[in-house]
Amino acid sequence: MPRPVIEFWFDFASTYTYLSAMRIETLADTHGVDVIWRPFLLGPIFRAQGWDTSPFNLYPAKGTYMWLDVARRADALGLNFVQPDPFPQNSLLAARTACHLPDGPQLASFCRHVFDAEFARGQNISDPQVISACLEAAGLQSSAVETASDDSTKSALRARTDIAAQRGLFGAPSFFVANELFWGDDRLEDALRRAVPEAGDTTTGSSNDRK
Amino acid sequence: MPRPVIEFWFDFASTYTYLSAMRIETLADTHGVDVIWRPFLLGPIFRAQGWDTSPFNLYPAKGTYMWLDVARRADALGLNFVQPDPFPQNSLLAARTACHLPDGPQLASFCRHVFDAEFARGQNISDPQVISACLEAAGLQSSAVETASDDSTKSALRARTDIAAQRGLFGAPSFFVANELFWGDDRLEDALRRAVPEAGDTTTGSSNDRK
Repeated sequence: MPRPVIEFWFDFASTYTYLSAMRIETLADTHGVDVIWRPFLLGPIFRAQGWDTSPFNLYPAKGTYMWLDVARRADALGLNFVQPDPFPQNSLLAARTACHLPDGPQLASFCRHVFDAEFARGQNISDPQVISACLEAAGLQSSAVETASDDSTKSALRARTDIAAQRGLFGAPSFFVANELFWGDDRLEDALRRAVPEAGDTTTGSSNDRK
Repeated sequence: MPRPVIEFWFDFASTYTYLSAMRIETLADTHGVDVIWRPFLLGPIFRAQGWDTSPFNLYPAKGTYMWLDVARRADALGLNFVQPDPFPQNSLLAARTACHLPDGPQLASFCRHVFDAEFARGQNISDPQVISACLEAAGLQSSAVETASDDSTKSALRARTDIAAQRGLFGAPSFFVANELFWGDDRLEDALRRAVPEAGDTTTGSSNDRK
């Protein structure tokens, strides 16, 4: 029996995704669920809504609250948190690099190292040296950062971002269990519970659509 | 010793507020916390952000998700849920009527009856007969709906909405513990925990600012 899966869709610049990224594997494992990491780009989705930057910059009251709220949640999780400068970070290089990596624990480890560099240590994730160091920390070749400039990698990330829009994603983090969407770090627990098939239930969990 | 308090700020048209309104008193009581109900109008705050209706209408992907998510949460709480038509409802009459009522259990009961009429039974809360029935159900005079057209009531609601904007509110439901903001039904539990003073702590809870 394959384990049930949850798809974890995110943009590396997303503050609330930091909270999910640092706890999802441990939490999913306690539910017996596997995580499929799906980095994509929010920029094109935000632009389609008429936004040229993060809504946290466009709407200052919402932004002021977000910084307070993420710091509060990070503190509750025992995570260091520093406000990236500039915000949002340019996540293109990290997303392309991740998009080229095969699914598995090294991809997950790379992603966590990127979030840690960005939000725990205040590093700039558009810097190839930062991304190379994250690859090495995940046991990967630092030269994998060079795949980011391959046309095939660029196409793969564009295709993934198109799929995100088609599936109704509008923010990050987002979780899919089969085709049911859960948006936001606050829904991670609900999504994991949904991923676990109930006795006799064949409609969720391991039977889901991994497209 | 007065009990610690939480301020509960909301617009009667807010879908996620329905989830909070129907459970906040019971949950607050288990924490030993009193609830101050503070209806206001989101419309002016949304207009200041350039929005002429609910963001759930302006951003269709977000709206599609919201209907699914609120229905899912209502189901988990054992609440009936019907999508109001039109959405958002015009909440002016309900807000003015509530703004004229003194703080206390009858105000809370009136507010819950309005949310129940709107979201559990699909009634139109801009209808004075619906609001009158909610007043009666809360043990109040149905004629209190007429206070909604008093200049003093209109001014009081405008002043309250101005205060909301000044205090950094940008959505509903919002909770204040002293001047610390918690936004969204998902933060209700966190806000209540914050309201309870820790042993020897005099900086939160009952010492808060009720302005």
